[in-house]
Order: sequence, then structure tokens, then C-alpha cells
Amino acid sequence: MNTQLRIAQIAPLIERVPPKKYGGTERVVYHLTEGLVARGHDVTLFASGDSITSARLIAPVREGLRLGRKEHSPLITTMLMLAQVYGEMADEFDIIHSHLEYVTFPFAVHAKAPTVFTMHGRLDIDDYAAILRRYRHLPLVSISDNQRSPVPDINWVGTIYHGYPPSSFDYNLHPDDYFLYLGRFSEEKRPDQAMMLAIACGVRLKVAAKIDPVDREYFDQRIKPLLQHPLVEYVGEVDECRKRELLKNARALLNTIDWPEPFGLVMIEALASGTPVIVRGCGSAPEIITGGKTGFVCNSRMDFINAIREIDTISRSRCRQEFLERFSADAMVRSYESLYMDLLPDRRLESVLQPERRPEPLHRLLGRPAGAADRS
Amino acid sequence: MNTQLRIAQIAPLIERVPPKKYGGTERVVYHLTEGLVARGHDVTLFASGDSITSARLIAPVREGLRLGRKEHSPLITTMLMLAQVYGEMADEFDIIHSHLEYVTFPFAVHAKAPTVFTMHGRLDIDDYAAILRRYRHLPLVSISDNQRSPVPDINWVGTIYHGYPPSSFDYNLHPDDYFLYLGRFSEEKRPDQAMMLAIACGVRLKVAAKIDPVDREYFDQRIKPLLQHPLVEYVGEVDECRKRELLKNARALLNTIDWPEPFGLVMIEALASGTPVIVRGCGSAPEIITGGKTGFVCNSRMDFINAIREIDTISRSRCRQEFLERFSADAMVRSYESLYMDLLPDRRLESVLQPERRPEPLHRLLGRPAGAADRS
Repeated sequence: MNTQLRIAQIAPLIERVPPKKYGGTERVVYHLTEGLVARGHDVTLFASGDSITSARLIAPVREGLRLGRKEHSPLITTMLMLAQVYGEMADEFDIIHSHLEYVTFPFAVHAKAPTVFTMHGRLDIDDYAAILRRYRHLPLVSISDNQRSPVPDINWVGTIYHGYPPSSFDYNLHPDDYFLYLGRFSEEKRPDQAMMLAIACGVRLKVAAKIDPVDREYFDQRIKPLLQHPLVEYVGEVDECRKRELLKNARALLNTIDWPEPFGLVMIEALASGTPVIVRGCGSAPEIITGGKTGFVCNSRMDFINAIREIDTISRSRCRQEFLERFSADAMVRSYESLYMDLLPDRRLESVLQPERRPEPLHRLLGRPAGAADRS
Repeated sequence: MNTQLRIAQIAPLIERVPPKKYGGTERVVYHLTEGLVARGHDVTLFASGDSITSARLIAPVREGLRLGRKEHSPLITTMLMLAQVYGEMADEFDIIHSHLEYVTFPFAVHAKAPTVFTMHGRLDIDDYAAILRRYRHLPLVSISDNQRSPVPDINWVGTIYHGYPPSSFDYNLHPDDYFLYLGRFSEEKRPDQAMMLAIACGVRLKVAAKIDPVDREYFDQRIKPLLQHPLVEYVGEVDECRKRELLKNARALLNTIDWPEPFGLVMIEALASGTPVIVRGCGSAPEIITGGKTGFVCNSRMDFINAIREIDTISRSRCRQEFLERFSADAMVRSYESLYMDLLPDRRLESVLQPERRPEPLHRLLGRPAGAADRS
């Protein structure tokens, strides 16, 4: 790798990069940006002003909108950010990477530099599918193959799994004697089923979960009674540090989620901690977890019960190994880098056809820089 | 007028055109579109599928989104509509008139045909001002001069007041013995003040108003007690037909609204009914109402009291006359038509500079068509 690219990363403005708490997209953008800078690229991150980055930061708002003290219109501030990327700064990038999905489309279609889009959400919504099809020529990246299934017939240019730096998580070959449920107390995540399974199997379950106001009624009616059981221990809502401790010491993550999650960061967080994952076979789960190797993919209650009973057959070092091979930030960064190169227009041809439209040299052929230290 | 233009009118998708009940923008778009068709133009209306129009209707959704049976994303369906106007149909219009404001900007900047924007809302919001300034070269129409005051320094190409067909309202030189408050029971409209003024002056007040759920607490605490007074009669929420009756038989409209309304359709509805308007001197009020001629513009409680006492000095036929001269649909349509002509690029010059980019003749010089009957 000795071609330095001028890359724009466009993040949502809702949370800072990286997020203080929740915000999977912002977390992935953080690791991707850090990785690209470390590999010598000239990266500009468009994100809220409280973001932390080794790239050049351009911020249309002072703080992430969710926690900001000033009330902003998310749509207008996002549009202003995109107008800057594609207007004032149009000549400054070889490649633009948007994590904002369809809001970017009208800007991207008129840009000189190609834009690649990572789709971060579910696509099984009619209007959503319609706008993806309307702009079907734009290059999109899925975060799992399963994510594509509602809209297979567009310009998917790759599936790139999310990744974390290996140092983000400790791993532990000798766990404590508990299973773990981690997430929110929302109905589609089926925390009730996780608890009932643990009780049925006579194993301990730690429950680390947040109660969103919208889930309060569900919590009071369905969850609270189950939390009284002696095998169940509610540890409340946890911070990142406590989450890592809980993950690495668990016998397995019990991921009972019952909707087609497009990726599921918590699963690779578990693998990174050496912890196998017992998961329902929906969404991206069968792509991320290999049954019998890094956990179990379950399609029935009996599958879940068998998985809990057989969890000690899974090698925890194999889980960590799988994380390193398939879900490290480095793997993610290299995949995106390779994709960016594929999307660049053929420079020689274009310079013949449109000599005056591209005055800037696209590739600055440099030796690989020592790191991020020499960039402004 | 013998130049037929191919005009796109882009309406909001929230309500149908014309709206069943509330929706000032959709009502104005309706009258403008009908007027342009009547004057022989080739008009395409982009609006919800339940709209009623003499123009060609192109509808990205079956029904107005607020009342639609199917849940749609307003932003995505709007973007799909704009993609059709500016993408697939880009060559079909000489002029595009958007009532969607800033969402249209990224599409309009790359279009061959000029787009003119009517601003329908308040502009005194920081983010809003910022995006108007970012696209300051685009031609904007204000609906009152006062509306511009937060952002005077952009490309305002005209103020065009809203208008109604004269037949929309009956007028009446001999009113009944009541004043009228018409609107919602929301705090910034000051219905409480309208009632207290009527009580203080010993005059009857009919109150025709809607209670929005968000205003329920205000209604219970501040309004309900005042509605008990024998001089105050609450007639509930009224339909268009009943509204016209109430307007034309009122001695005056008592418009106590206390925020800078950019236009205020209810004031011209009153004038069209021959009914003078007593209004607070904020927003567009001093432009629409001429003190001592079509009502009174009040800046204090004493002003309001004097206005109520002196209301019979106002000539009701003068009010109707003012409506016909300044606020008829015909005046509005002619103003927009003239503006469209001004915004057209110089055909001869452009055909020399870019012969291949504009294959279509822009002006089809025709005699003025007999009406809308001969269009598809």
C-alpha cells in the first residue's frame, strides 16, 4: 500500500465519534477513520465537534445532536455538512465515504469523486427499498449478506463486516460460572426468553440492560417478575469498562434477539473477549457465528437448551481467533481501502477525456508515511 | 400573454391539494395551479394522489401522508418525488416551482431549468437561516416583506401575497352583532386576550377554534373559564362552509395572534368576506391590513379596545375591494407568471453557447388556449 488517498468520512451528527455510550455507526466510523489515518491516508472526518479523531475534523455542529445543549435540526445540519463536502470542498477528495445513506444520494450523483455508502440499518421498509432502487447505480456496502435480502437487485459492491482493534477487548480462557444477556429490555430482543432459558437449564444469568422509557410497560409486566429468580442477577445498565469485564468472564453471550439485525456488534465484542455466542438464527447471526465453533445458531427452544448444555465444547481461544481473522478493525480497514481503489476512475483515460475537469493529481505516489504524526 | 410555459408545481405531500381541512400551503398551490392552467400553461402538479387538479397530476403516494392509511417516510417519499422532477423528467419543464423549500435545494442546483421557491414558513430559526444563506443564489419568493427580516441578505426575487378566487367567499355589507375569533386554542394565538377584550368592551364574541392535543392543558386552565362568560359563544371546530358564514356575518375578525406570522390566510379570508380585521402589529399584519381602511393594526391593549369601539367606521365594501385588488388568486397567478418569465434563461444566447444541451424549444409560441379543456 503506497498510494495515499484523500478520503472524506461522513458520520451521522447524532452522537460524537466515537460515541460516549450508544451509537454503533459512530463507533465503526471511529475505528475505520483511525485505521485509514494509521495506514497513511489523508482523511477528513465530517462529524460533530466533540468527536475525537486523528483525522482532520470538520464539524458543522459543536456537539452530537442527541446530547447537544443547543437545539438543531438534524436534517438541515446534515444537509449543510453535505453541501460543504460536495460543494466548497468538492475538489479535495479522491473518494467520499458516507455513513448517512440516502440523504447523501442527491449530492453524490453530481460529484466528481465517487461516493461509497455503508448501509448501517435494516432495509426491509418499502420506502427505503424504493429510494435505494431509484439510485441503484450508486455503490453500496452491506454490513452482512443477509442485510441485502430485501433489496438484492442494486449495486452492492461488497459486504464488509464491522471490526474492532484487538486491544479493545481482553479475552479470558477461564470464565466465571454465568451466562450473559446484554442489551436493552425491548420486546424484540427477547430478554424474557433469555431468562426463561437460563431458569429452565438451571444456569446463572447476569442481565446487563437498559430500560428505555418506551419499554417501561414491557419491563414492568414481563421482565420484573423474572428478575426475582435466584438464578437471575440484574446488574443494571453498564458502561464500556464494566461491559468488557462482564463479557470476558461469561460462559457465553445469550443473544435471544428476534429481529433481523443487519450486523450485531455485541456478537463480535463477545468473540473478541473469547466468549462464545448463543444466538437465534435470524439476520446476520449465521454469518457471524459458526455453529459448533464460535457458538450456536438456534432455531428452536430445544436448540437454545442444547446450546447452553454444550457450551463448554466451544474453544474460547477459537472465538478470539475468529474475531482476529474476520472482525478486526484492520481487516475492515483493508477491505474498505481495497474497495476505494476499485472505485477510483481510471486516471489515465479520464485525463485524456476531460483534461480541464480534473486539474488535481489524484494519486500522490508516496512512500508509506510513518504514521499520522505528520498530518495536520 | 401568449407564451405557454411548461411548469412543474411541487407541493408538500402532507395534505392533498387542496387540503380537506388545514394546510395553507396546499391551498395556495391549488389556486396557483388552477390559475396557471386557466391561463394556458402546461402545468404538472407533483402532489399526493388524492389531490384534485386541472393540471397533470404526478403522485408519488396515493394519499396525503397525514391522513394516509399506509405509513410512509415523508422525507423519502419527498426525495423520490424530487428525483423524478429533476431526474427522469428533467427535460420536460421550462420552470420548476417548489413549495418544499430547502429539501429541494440540492436537486435544484444541478438542474437545467430554473427553480423558484416560495417560502411558506417562519425563517427566524438559526439552522434555517444558515441553509438559506448556503444556497443564497437560488431565487426565493417571500409571502410578505416582513417574512424576510431574519435573512434579508439572500436572493429574494419578489414578495407575492397569497390569493383566493373572488368566488371563494361571499361578502356581506350588513353583519350580525358579533366579533369573531378563528383559529386554534394555542397560547401564541392569544385566544384568551380576544375573549378578555370582548368582555372588557361589552361586545359579543364567537369563538371557532380547534383544540389540539398539545394545547389541552392550556385550554383547560386558561380558556375554559373564559368560555363561560355570557358574551362569549364557543361554536367548536368548524368546516369551510361554516367558516365562511361566520366570517361574512362578523363585525370584525379579532386576530390576537402574538407571533410573526409570515402571511396569515385568515386575514384575507376576512377581507374577501367584507369583514375588517383587528390584528396585533406583528409579522405580516401591517402589510396586509391598512389601519383605518381595512381594519386596525394594534400595538397595545388600548389600541385593541379603541379598534373594537371604532369598527363601524370601516367600510366593508372597501375591505372586499382591497381583497380583489391585492389578494385575488388572479393577482397572485399573474405575479408568479411574470416572475417565471423573468427567470427564464436568455434563449438565444444559450442556444449559441450550448447548442447540444438544450434540444427542446423552450417557448412554444401559441395563441392563448381557450382554457384547460384541451390538455391531457
